[in-house]
Amino acid sequence: MTFQDCFPVWNKLNATQQERLLGSLTTRNVKKGTVLHDGSKDCTGLILIQSGQLRAFILSDEGREITIYRLLERDMCLLSASCIMHSIQFSVTIEAEKDTVFWLIPADVYKSLMAESAPVANYTNELMASRFSDVMWLIEQVLWKSLDKRVAAFLLEEIAIEGTDILKITHETIANHLGTHREVITRMLRYFQNESMVRLSRGTVTVLDQEKLSALQK
Amino acid sequence: MTFQDCFPVWNKLNATQQERLLGSLTTRNVKKGTVLHDGSKDCTGLILIQSGQLRAFILSDEGREITIYRLLERDMCLLSASCIMHSIQFSVTIEAEKDTVFWLIPADVYKSLMAESAPVANYTNELMASRFSDVMWLIEQVLWKSLDKRVAAFLLEEIAIEGTDILKITHETIANHLGTHREVITRMLRYFQNESMVRLSRGTVTVLDQEKLSALQK
Repeated sequence: MTFQDCFPVWNKLNATQQERLLGSLTTRNVKKGTVLHDGSKDCTGLILIQSGQLRAFILSDEGREITIYRLLERDMCLLSASCIMHSIQFSVTIEAEKDTVFWLIPADVYKSLMAESAPVANYTNELMASRFSDVMWLIEQVLWKSLDKRVAAFLLEEIAIEGTDILKITHETIANHLGTHREVITRMLRYFQNESMVRLSRGTVTVLDQEKLSALQK
Repeated sequence: MTFQDCFPVWNKLNATQQERLLGSLTTRNVKKGTVLHDGSKDCTGLILIQSGQLRAFILSDEGREITIYRLLERDMCLLSASCIMHSIQFSVTIEAEKDTVFWLIPADVYKSLMAESAPVANYTNELMASRFSDVMWLIEQVLWKSLDKRVAAFLLEEIAIEGTDILKITHETIANHLGTHREVITRMLRYFQNESMVRLSRGTVTVLDQEKLSALQK
């Protein structure tokens, strides 16, 4: 898998632009748990994922977290380079959820390409619209869905990403994804266990009945 | 005030593009309360406000509302033309909060300009980032701020927009802005009245103590 394969508007760049972009790239390896980008403190650059998994989240003053989206192979992270646009007036933290390999595009190089090239600017627009859509989905969830539905949706997403029904995940981690407290998640998971939808053991949630979890969403 | 004055990248367009854009414009007048754009049902076009005030909100299945942002003179509304981008996967409703005059740019004309012109595409990016920032602010409010702070912030915003301490607004309307129920707002406003921050009468909320309302936000 080359960078050219993963960057959808590669062929819309001229030779000089392609050279400038390739020449500026670095490849990075990070371990699970690494914080790649910390809010407004820095302008890390754009991240294009080769393998692994990242999550973007926001933090409250009291240290509570909520996941706003997750990035998988071939996904591009724009908000790690929020300095490329004046109007991005918020900050996110980006953390590796798995060991991750990615290309890093320096913010100034990307910004100059966006200024020159309508295709790059429009691709960036689509990326932003896509993250914006994730956040709109999230706000509807937070406002209007009860927590049982949100926990069920999260578990179903996890088993789809992991490809297994046996999830190595703590109640604390689930709480941080969903913007709530550990105790609340523990209570909900116990309810799911009583209803035979999951089985709980130390550090593991095993999904027993996907259909019943899906039915909760209706 | 001409369209040219209000469209920041006008001078970055060539003569043909300027002509195409001007030739496609229509001016519309709508009364307070008019719904200009109704979710995913239509692709109204881009709205550039000459005078008046619009609000964009989302609706739950049960008919609850929450305001996601408001648009004043010279603001451009992008989400009324969500068909210009594939990745906008959500829908908003746009309603006139006051009698409003605006220019309407057809979505197809704008889309063609975005495709040709990096400045137009980058301007659109900034617009989207700006609305995205509004929604990120909102999600932090909903998740992490108690309702007293949110009601206080709303009242302070209203008196700034209206230029008066005497607000002609119902408890129902405030509830629809903040994504909650009328009864909850009534209870909160009565508490504010007991604390001498506001005075309530039929259809009116008079702000008596801006400083005390501001202090609530801390």
